[in-house]
This record gives sequence, structure tokens and C-alpha cells, in this order.
Amino acid sequence: MRLRVKDFTFFAGRPVVILNSLTATKLNVFQNNRVRLDHKGKDYYAVVDIFQKGVRPEEIILSRELMTTLRIKEGEMIEVSISDHSPAGKLIKKKMDGHRLTDKEFEIIIDQIVRNHVTEPEIAYFLAAQRMMGMTAQESVNLTWAMVRTGGVLKFGAQRKVVDKHCIGGIAGNRTTPLVVSICACAGLTFPKTSSRAITSAAGTADVIETISNIQLSIHDLKRVINKTGACLAWGGSLRLAPSDDKIIQVEKLINLDVESQMLASIMSKKIAAGAKYLVIDIPYGRGAKASNLKQAKEMAKKFREIAHPFKIKIDVVFTEGRYPIGQGVGPVLEMLDVIRVLQNTPECPKDLKEKSIFLAGKVMKLAGIKNARRKAREILESGAAYRKFVEIINAQNGKEDFEKRIRALKPAKFKLTIKAVKKGKILHLDNKKINTLCRILGTPETRSAGIFLHKKIGRVKRDEPLITLFSESKTKLKEGLKYFKNEKVMEVKF
Amino acid sequence: MRLRVKDFTFFAGRPVVILNSLTATKLNVFQNNRVRLDHKGKDYYAVVDIFQKGVRPEEIILSRELMTTLRIKEGEMIEVSISDHSPAGKLIKKKMDGHRLTDKEFEIIIDQIVRNHVTEPEIAYFLAAQRMMGMTAQESVNLTWAMVRTGGVLKFGAQRKVVDKHCIGGIAGNRTTPLVVSICACAGLTFPKTSSRAITSAAGTADVIETISNIQLSIHDLKRVINKTGACLAWGGSLRLAPSDDKIIQVEKLINLDVESQMLASIMSKKIAAGAKYLVIDIPYGRGAKASNLKQAKEMAKKFREIAHPFKIKIDVVFTEGRYPIGQGVGPVLEMLDVIRVLQNTPECPKDLKEKSIFLAGKVMKLAGIKNARRKAREILESGAAYRKFVEIINAQNGKEDFEKRIRALKPAKFKLTIKAVKKGKILHLDNKKINTLCRILGTPETRSAGIFLHKKIGRVKRDEPLITLFSESKTKLKEGLKYFKNEKVMEVKF
Repeated sequence: MRLRVKDFTFFAGRPVVILNSLTATKLNVFQNNRVRLDHKGKDYYAVVDIFQKGVRPEEIILSRELMTTLRIKEGEMIEVSISDHSPAGKLIKKKMDGHRLTDKEFEIIIDQIVRNHVTEPEIAYFLAAQRMMGMTAQESVNLTWAMVRTGGVLKFGAQRKVVDKHCIGGIAGNRTTPLVVSICACAGLTFPKTSSRAITSAAGTADVIETISNIQLSIHDLKRVINKTGACLAWGGSLRLAPSDDKIIQVEKLINLDVESQMLASIMSKKIAAGAKYLVIDIPYGRGAKASNLKQAKEMAKKFREIAHPFKIKIDVVFTEGRYPIGQGVGPVLEMLDVIRVLQNTPECPKDLKEKSIFLAGKVMKLAGIKNARRKAREILESGAAYRKFVEIINAQNGKEDFEKRIRALKPAKFKLTIKAVKKGKILHLDNKKINTLCRILGTPETRSAGIFLHKKIGRVKRDEPLITLFSESKTKLKEGLKYFKNEKVMEVKF
Repeated sequence: MRLRVKDFTFFAGRPVVILNSLTATKLNVFQNNRVRLDHKGKDYYAVVDIFQKGVRPEEIILSRELMTTLRIKEGEMIEVSISDHSPAGKLIKKKMDGHRLTDKEFEIIIDQIVRNHVTEPEIAYFLAAQRMMGMTAQESVNLTWAMVRTGGVLKFGAQRKVVDKHCIGGIAGNRTTPLVVSICACAGLTFPKTSSRAITSAAGTADVIETISNIQLSIHDLKRVINKTGACLAWGGSLRLAPSDDKIIQVEKLINLDVESQMLASIMSKKIAAGAKYLVIDIPYGRGAKASNLKQAKEMAKKFREIAHPFKIKIDVVFTEGRYPIGQGVGPVLEMLDVIRVLQNTPECPKDLKEKSIFLAGKVMKLAGIKNARRKAREILESGAAYRKFVEIINAQNGKEDFEKRIRALKPAKFKLTIKAVKKGKILHLDNKKINTLCRILGTPETRSAGIFLHKKIGRVKRDEPLITLFSESKTKLKEGLKYFKNEKVMEVKF
């Protein structure tokens, strides 16, 4: 049935179409069923809502996500039909029954997820099956391949050394990426860095970069920026590299389910799609981190190596301190201010952020064959070369030479509150997860300027010494943040 | 935030609200997030869609399901706030990690499912965990209890013998329920029968009864009908007995996942909520049935007995032929015509449907302490008493004495096609699942009059002997049905 597209600026967060009830009856579809949309030789799938007014029988309203994916405009015609059953369901059931899946079978599942032919509950079954039935190394490779093949791939000339790094999340304020990328690009490496926005954390790298830069680059823009500067700091979401990932993560995060095999495939597929040949994986471990001890971290490392091998990626896995936040600011603006202070070699810049960035950049450079890598990394940073490279990358992404102006506009939120030590004592623990929740209460990541600044992270404190400053654009949120800080023992202090 | 309800006759198939984008920003909610609705002292949850036009900042559009559940009208005000995280997620994760859940924990999960505070993917995780981690007998009892306690319960005087029967589905045309109910009610038993509509089959008992009767009874109506006639034949959906079940089944059916523990709890909770003290479970077994052999059927029976015991329900499990359809018609109208022929003792009525109904009614009566039960069941049916009881029940449900008129109006679909044997031969197999698909192609259960009539189910056939007649209200569907019948070997005949 051909229907005319009506634009309603309708945001559903998933592909939804709205049909008039008469049209639905004719198509023999019910609410919450799926329909197939055929447009320019491709098929897409969407969930059906039904209205008795607001849309006419010859019309169809598409949710904003669909308008974008289909590149269709109001008034255009589209072919709509009842959707056949997705073949992915059968394969997911097979996995639930304990069978192993082949590369072809994983590709069918992932392809159908990308084209929205698989419902969210079906994705949940898929994740549950991976978690409870386990995945062999071969299955992890198969899943990774499937995720790469169902999206775009970046290609660079053979003479370039394309590198990447990834940190297993969970550490507040751990914003090494802009520093590592700038240093490595100065060393002549190609660093097509794509990052994600925060899902459950206080800020993702993409959120932090966005405080001063355009991050929604097209493939074309991205290549232009890389050709000019050797690197980029883009948001992965707009590039459709391994596009199944976003949908899968959304379902995973509903109950904060960590499915290790899926995490491995998600990370590795994005790196492979970005063209990386040298990859450093950073696994922080310790109380509060994803890997709670070194043994767990090493087991994870083994699995990364197993996947990297068949893809001919040189990989190095490093294990770092995961018990405390890195840097002093947590929240998009506050983290960017930390990064700038390190790049500008300000004397009171956060030392741990600086040292960790030099360490990681050194590891990447060494892996790519650069001698005396760590020493060179330090020189690049301390000479100001990394700072100039960072300015170059950001200006290229913005298409304007207005870096200084953007930096000057960076301001933490207007309401703030500093908590001091009531008497002398000792900080015993600083909880990464609770810091995260605290920042979210204060308004991050939606409110870019909200967050916290850590004056002290560990060790002895004097009476009246400042411990932490809370920032928020709302007085109510500031109060709630203070209440949370006190009740939940975000910082364990022994007086 | 208080918002004014706007009615848009909006069918989403799940609880959805539509907010203006400005309102969403103020509430700090995004599309696909959940909001909490407070109305008349109770909290409900709904998924958010966002419009930029069609709804004003001070308004909220509720999906039809919500309008009904909340009993709210256009123009009324409702309190809307951002939803806190559901505690059910944590418990579901606990189950996924292999831990056992207590009665209290199951109750939290089920209660949150009923109030829509659990998303469909979370329900999928819950089902996957049951299936892959298994459930102890105690956990099955706990889950059953939770499903009973979160809905309404029917209560009858202690002097009444309240009975029920349940058939594990999968057998086409197996419409014994109206017959068994009528016979048992004649024998003085109380039979508060609630049935479901078809989900993936050609017709549910509720669909069949609906061809001549109102089936959407309120609790009040249902009691009136039972007090007058001793029984009812109602649709379970409108009664909110074990109301979590519908939501769970919807998710289960997405990939036709059979989760045995959930099936046991679903069945038992509805029987307990309906007040049953004597229960007969019919497990058909054999090729094409849910239990593919007697061993499987017996294992299932053991689990039913384990759950029935702590609830003080007398239970009898019977094992019946599951390889062939029962009766001749498949489809709502065609099955009702079969039932009427048996009740009227028409000589050419389907013998297998008649005998199975007498057998099951006898089992129920015996369990409730009636002597010579099978013989009495036959007498009740063959004397016409069961027919008169059936007429009484249907008239009571309709609130009108117009049974005859309704029966006369029962007509199979207008387009039909009879397939005959091309030469003499032998029917080797008749596939229940394929008959089901065939009927759905012809238009069931939505088209009440569509379906098939089986002239012959097994054994030798002569040349030109009619095998099957297909009925549909659409010529195209009839053609598609014929194609499916031929290509898919619905009936295996050796010529």
C-alpha cells in the first residue's frame, strides 16, 4: 500500500509509524505489530501506533529516527506492507538452547537488528543467551565480524599507521582520550578516534569534546579532518560504524547488564571498522572498577587478544589503577577544563591525568614501532606540541579558527558548594559509582556545566581543607546532591 | 507536574504517553524513557513519545490502554513525574546470575510487571533466566503465588464444588471446553471457566464462544451468570485474574519461546484465582503436540502436581492423543458448529470431539466425588441436558433469550474450495502446526468465519473423496491457502 509521508516532528526513540485505524485494518496490522517500509530499493521495519485522528487514511507519520534513516521528506510516497516474521528469532532461540552459532547466523541476527526487524525483547533474549550459555572464542570472532560487516568501514592508505586505544569504562573523570590522540598524532600516527556519549555515566568522551567542538562528523568530514591533522575526535553515533551497537547497548543498559562477550564484540568491531591496526586496551582494576581485581582483568585481556588475532590487529593490554577517579573534574565542562590544563602544562594541573595519558600514548607509540616512546610522548606534551595539535584538530572539526573563544566560554555551573573537612582525618575511599550518581543528580551529562571538582582524592586532610565542590544549574539539584554526598558516603573519611 | 489529559483515540498496544517537547525538557525525560503517573492514590508507568505539534505543553495524550486502566477522561488533570528505577531489574539480574528468588522477590517482579514499571526487554530477561537457569519446585510455587496475589480472586461459598479443566494447547480444533463445562454444570458442579483468545493459534476458546456470545464479563456479571447457571464461558482478559500473564505471554510469543516454569505458573495462577478446588489437566502428546512423547508429558504432569499440592487443589492429569486435530472444523465459526452438532446429538457429529469431552467431563466429575462419572457424563450429553445448559449459559451471558437466532446466523465464509483425493490412497499424517498456519492464511482468528473443515483425518481414502474444505472471505487468501496446502504437505497422503 502506498502512503503519503506526513511529518509530525515525532520523537519515539525507536522506529515507529502512526497509521489511521482504517489503514491499519486494511493492512491487517495491529498496534505494536511491525510493518515493512520499502524505500529506494531497501526494506526497513517499524512498530505501529494507531490514531483515529491526526493522520488521514492515505497518510503515514514516521518517527524522527525513521525520517533520518530513510532520508525521506513530507509529501513523498512510501510503500508499506505487513511485515513477515524475522528469521533472527529462530537463531536467537537456537543460541538459548545452548547451540553454537556460525558467522553467517550471527550476521543474520545483527543485520536484522540494524534494520529494526528485531524487537527489543528479542535483543534481550540474545544478550541473555550470550551471558547464560557463554560464547566460544570463535563465536566472539563471528559476532565481531558480523558487527563490522553490517556497517561502514574506514579505509586509509597502506603507508599510514592507524592506531586506536580503548579504556574499559567505569572510572570517573578518566578523560585521557583527547590527550593521547593529540600526542600520538604529533608522533605521526593516524588516529581516527570515535567515542560515545554517556549512557549511564556522568560524561562520555563525546560529551566532553562537544563542549568546545562539533562532533557529528560525516564520513567525508572525518576524512578531511584526518587528512589535515592526522586525527579526529568524533562522536561514533553519526558514522554508522558497527551500527547495531547502539541498539544493543540500549537494551543492555535497562538492567545494567554486563554481557562480556557483547562488550568485547562491540569494542573490537568499532576499532576494526575504524581501520585500526595497532590497538591499546586499558583495563582499570580494583574496588569499584569493572574488573574488581587483577585476575579478572587478565582474563578479560586474554579474550581481547583472542579476538584481535584473526583480524591481524597488534594489540597491547595494560592494567591500570581503577580504585579512584582520574583527574579532578567530573562532568563534561569540568573534565574539558582538566584536559586543557594538562595540555597547557599549568603547574597545578591534575598529575594523575597527565601521567596516565603519557603512559597510554607511549604504549600506543611503542606498539606502532616508535622507539623511546614514553620519553617522546612526554616531550610532545610538555613542549606544547600536543596542545597545538589539539587546537588544530578542534578547529578542523569546527571549520573555524575560534578555539580560544570557545575555551574562554567554558564555565562550570553557576550554583556551587564546597564541602570541607570538619576536622583533620584521612580519606579511605572514593567510590567511582557513587561519584557518577552524584554527578547525575547534579545534572550531568545533559547539563554540560554540572558536575564536581575533587580537591583531594586520597590521604590525610587538615581541618577545613576543601574536599569537593559540587556544581549545578539548579539550586534544588545542588541540595539533593549534598544530601546524597552525605547519606551515601561518596567519600569515606576517617576523622 | 500536573497536565491536562487529551484524548486522541491513540492505540499503541502498550502504555504510552505523548508529551510536547517543552514539557519533556522540563521533566528531564527523553523519548522511550518512562514517566510515573499518579492518579487517585495509585502510581502507573508509561513510555514517553515526544511531539512538537498536536499536543500543547500543558497537555498529555494517553494511549487507549492507559485511559482504560486509569479510568480517566479528556480534560481531567493528572500528576506526571520522572520515573525512578524499577527494583524488579535488580531481582531479574539476580535470577540471571543463578540465584534462587523468594516469594517476596517474585511478588515485586510480578507487581511491577502489572503496573508497567518493567519494560518488555526486562520481561524477556526474566523469561530467559527462568529457561536457562531453571526453577526449583519452590520457586514455581512462589511465582504462582505472586501471579495470584497481584490480581483479583473469585470466591464462592464453601458448599460449592468449584472445578476447572485446562488443556495444554497445540491441537487444532480441540474445542472440548463448552461441552465439558455444560456437562459438569448439569452435574451440579460450579465451573467458572475463563478462556483466552488465540495468540498464535487459529482460534482460542474465547474466540469460538464469541461467535454467539458476549464474553467480556465484569466480575459482577460473571457472578450473576454463575449463580444462575452454575457456570460461565468468559474471556479471561477482562477479569484481571493474574493480570501479569498477558504482558508476559506477549513477550514470550515474540520468538515462540516456551518457558515451562512460566507456563505452569500462568495456568495454575489463573485456576487458583478463579477459585478452583478440583482441576483436570489434559496433556495431549505425540508428533506435533507440545509434549512430543509420553515421557515428556509425564514429566510435565509431575510439575503440575508439585504446584497444586501447596495450594490444596485436587488435581488429575490425563494424557490424550495429540497427533491429530480434534473435531472437523478449525476456525471460530467452524468450531462452534462442531460443538453445536455434538450438543444436539446430530448423528454425523464429530465422534472424537464428543468422546473426548465425555472423557474429560467424567474425569472432572470423578475428581469432585461423583460416582459412575463417565456414564453420567454421557447420559447428560446424550439426553440433551447439556445442550439446554449451554443455551442457558449463553443466554445469561448475553442477557437475552436469543440463542436460536444467533445459531442460525452462524455461517462459514463465503468463498470455499474443496480438495479431493486425486486417486485412492492413505492419509499418513495431518500436521497440527501446519493446519494452524493454513487457517491463519485463510484469515483466522480475526475473520471469524474463515478456516477449514476436515472431511477425513486418517486412514484410507477413495478416488475423488473430499479431504478438506478451505473457507475464506477473500479470494486471494483462498488461493494462498491452497498454495500453502499443496506446497507444505499439510496432509501427508500416500497414493
